[in-house]
Amino acid sequence: MIQTPYLLFLGDAPDQLAAKVAQGIKDWRPENAVGQIRLEGCGADMGLTDMTLEDGLAAGAKTLVIGVANRGGVISDKWKVVLVQALKMGYDLAAGLHNLLRDENELQSAAKVNGGTLHDVRVPTIAYPIANGKRRSGKRVLAIGTDCSCGKMYTAMSMDAEMRDRGMKSDFRATGQTGILITGKGVPLDAVIADFMAGAVEYLTPDNDDDHWDHIEGQGSLFHVSYSGVTMALIHGGQPDALVLCHEPTRTHMRGLPHYGLPSLETLRDTALPLARVANPDCFVAGVSVNTKALDEDAARACLEEIEARMGLPATDPFRFGAGKLVDTLTS
Amino acid sequence: MIQTPYLLFLGDAPDQLAAKVAQGIKDWRPENAVGQIRLEGCGADMGLTDMTLEDGLAAGAKTLVIGVANRGGVISDKWKVVLVQALKMGYDLAAGLHNLLRDENELQSAAKVNGGTLHDVRVPTIAYPIANGKRRSGKRVLAIGTDCSCGKMYTAMSMDAEMRDRGMKSDFRATGQTGILITGKGVPLDAVIADFMAGAVEYLTPDNDDDHWDHIEGQGSLFHVSYSGVTMALIHGGQPDALVLCHEPTRTHMRGLPHYGLPSLETLRDTALPLARVANPDCFVAGVSVNTKALDEDAARACLEEIEARMGLPATDPFRFGAGKLVDTLTS
Repeated sequence: MIQTPYLLFLGDAPDQLAAKVAQGIKDWRPENAVGQIRLEGCGADMGLTDMTLEDGLAAGAKTLVIGVANRGGVISDKWKVVLVQALKMGYDLAAGLHNLLRDENELQSAAKVNGGTLHDVRVPTIAYPIANGKRRSGKRVLAIGTDCSCGKMYTAMSMDAEMRDRGMKSDFRATGQTGILITGKGVPLDAVIADFMAGAVEYLTPDNDDDHWDHIEGQGSLFHVSYSGVTMALIHGGQPDALVLCHEPTRTHMRGLPHYGLPSLETLRDTALPLARVANPDCFVAGVSVNTKALDEDAARACLEEIEARMGLPATDPFRFGAGKLVDTLTS
Repeated sequence: MIQTPYLLFLGDAPDQLAAKVAQGIKDWRPENAVGQIRLEGCGADMGLTDMTLEDGLAAGAKTLVIGVANRGGVISDKWKVVLVQALKMGYDLAAGLHNLLRDENELQSAAKVNGGTLHDVRVPTIAYPIANGKRRSGKRVLAIGTDCSCGKMYTAMSMDAEMRDRGMKSDFRATGQTGILITGKGVPLDAVIADFMAGAVEYLTPDNDDDHWDHIEGQGSLFHVSYSGVTMALIHGGQPDALVLCHEPTRTHMRGLPHYGLPSLETLRDTALPLARVANPDCFVAGVSVNTKALDEDAARACLEEIEARMGLPATDPFRFGAGKLVDTLTS
C-alpha cells in the first residue's frame, strides 16, 4: 500500500528512542530506507546517509516516512515546512502520529495539488468488535515490558524471524505504527476506542492452525500509568499461551515519568501472569528478553546470566544474540 | 444542557440490567423522569408509568432519553420508528450509545425539520491529554468490581450523597453515559481513544482542596476480558487514595461471557491494590459494596456479615442500607 523505498524523516527527535519508527524500519527492512533527513537539534541518528529531499529523490525514494514518535504526536510548524516541500517535489507522506497528516490543511492542499498520498497508518480503518473472550485455535505469544520502549516489538520480530528460519508457521502481529509501517498491516491499538481495544486484538489474532504462532507486538506496560490500559487489553484480547518479559536494564525511571521507578522482572511476572490466566488458564512465562544495547558484550552476557540464574528462565537479547532460546521454550 | 424532564425509552431491553441508564436516572433523579416507554418484548420495568409519546408530552417531558445500554450500542430499525416520531412531536433525544444519534440520517433529518436537538453524551468533546502521573492534591476513591454492571456507579453516587449529607466536600465523577446523563457532565471513558484514557481520568479528577473527595465511577472489571483495559486506565489515571470493592453475590458468570467465572473479592483485592499502588503508594481498600438487590433483607444482612468477617473490611449495600460505613472508613 505504501510505496517504497522510503526516505526517513527524523525531524528534531531529541534522542534515539524518540525515533523508534525510523529505527525499526532501518533494522527490519533496511532495503526500504535510502537515507535519513534531520532537522537542526536532532539527537537521533540511524547511521544512514544524511540526505536532502533532492538527494532522496535522486536515490529513488517514493515516500517520506515520519520516523519520529513524539509524546502526543504533534506535527510542528518546523516539520511542516519540510513536509509541504516534500509533497511539492512528488513524495507521498506516511506517518503514525495521533496528529494526522490529513488534518493539516497545508499538507492536504499540497497533496491535492501534486497528486501525493497521505498515509496515516495510525488511523483504524475497521469497526472492531467488542471482545468475546472465546478461546481461539492456534498459539499466541505476547511481549510485555517493565516499561514502554524497551524492546517488545524487536522481541516479537526476532522470534517471528527465528520461527520462519526454522520453517515453522509464524506471523508478526503489529499493534503500533512502526510495525504497521514495516509489515504493511496490523491494528493501530493506541488509537482504537477504549471499548473495542481487546476486540481489536482478537480480530488481529484470529483462529489459526494448531501449530501456528502469532507474535503479538506489545504496547506500553502494566506499570506505565499513561498506557497501562492498552497493555491490559493486549493481555486479555490476545489470550496469549506464553508471555515474554522484556526489560532494559539501564533504565532508571519509567519513560516520560521521572517520578516513577521501574518494577522488577519478578514483579512484572507476578502481576502479568495471573491477569493473563483470566483469558488463558494455561499461559506461562517463556523467558526474558533483555535490551542490552547500552551494554558492551561482556556486560550484556553477564546481565543475561544473572537474570537466568535469578529467574530460572531463559534470557537473551534476541536482536543481539538471537531468539533461539525463546523459541526453544515455546516448542519444547 | 439536556432539557428536563425526561421520558425514558426502554426499547426492547431484554432485562433490567440492560436498561441501567434508565434505572440510574429513576433512582438518582426521579424528579427528572415523567414515565417510561416500552416496546414489545421489553423485559425491563422501572416501575414508572407506561406512557405513549403523547402521554409523555402531556406530562411535560422535553427529552426522550434512550435508557438502554445494549451490547455494541446499536440503534435498531424498531427503535428508529419511535425516535423519528418523537422528534416529529417536538422531543429532543439524548443517548449514550456507541451508535450515535447524529450518524442516523433519518434522525438527523427529523431533528432538522422539527428543530430538535440530538444529544450524544458518549461522544468525547474534549482533546484529553496523555496522563502524566503527577500526584494531585485532594482525595479520590474509586469503585472497582468483580464484574461489570455490579453496582460501581451506585456505590460512588451513594458515597457522594452521604458525604454531602455530612457537609463534606465531595463530587461524583461520571465516567459513563448514565452518570453523565444524570449529572450533566463527565468523561465518556469507554469512547475515549486508548492512548488518552488515563489522561482523561486525570482531567476528570484535577487538583482539589485537601479535604475534598472525588468519587470516581468505575467501569468494567480487571477480570472482564472485554473491558479490563478501561478499568486499568481508571486505576492509574485516577490514582485513588482508596478502593471500594463492588460485588454482586448471585452472579454465576461474567456478564456477557458465559464461559468466564467471577473472581473472589480476595482475588480482586490482591490484584487491584498492587496495581493502584503504582500510581498512589498509599492506596488502601476502604471496604466492600455488595449489590444485594437479588436477596431478601435477611439474606442480604447475612451476606454482608459473612463478607465482613471473611475480609476484615466494612461491607454494606450502600443503596439499600446506606454508605455510612464506607464513608466512616475514609474519614477515620
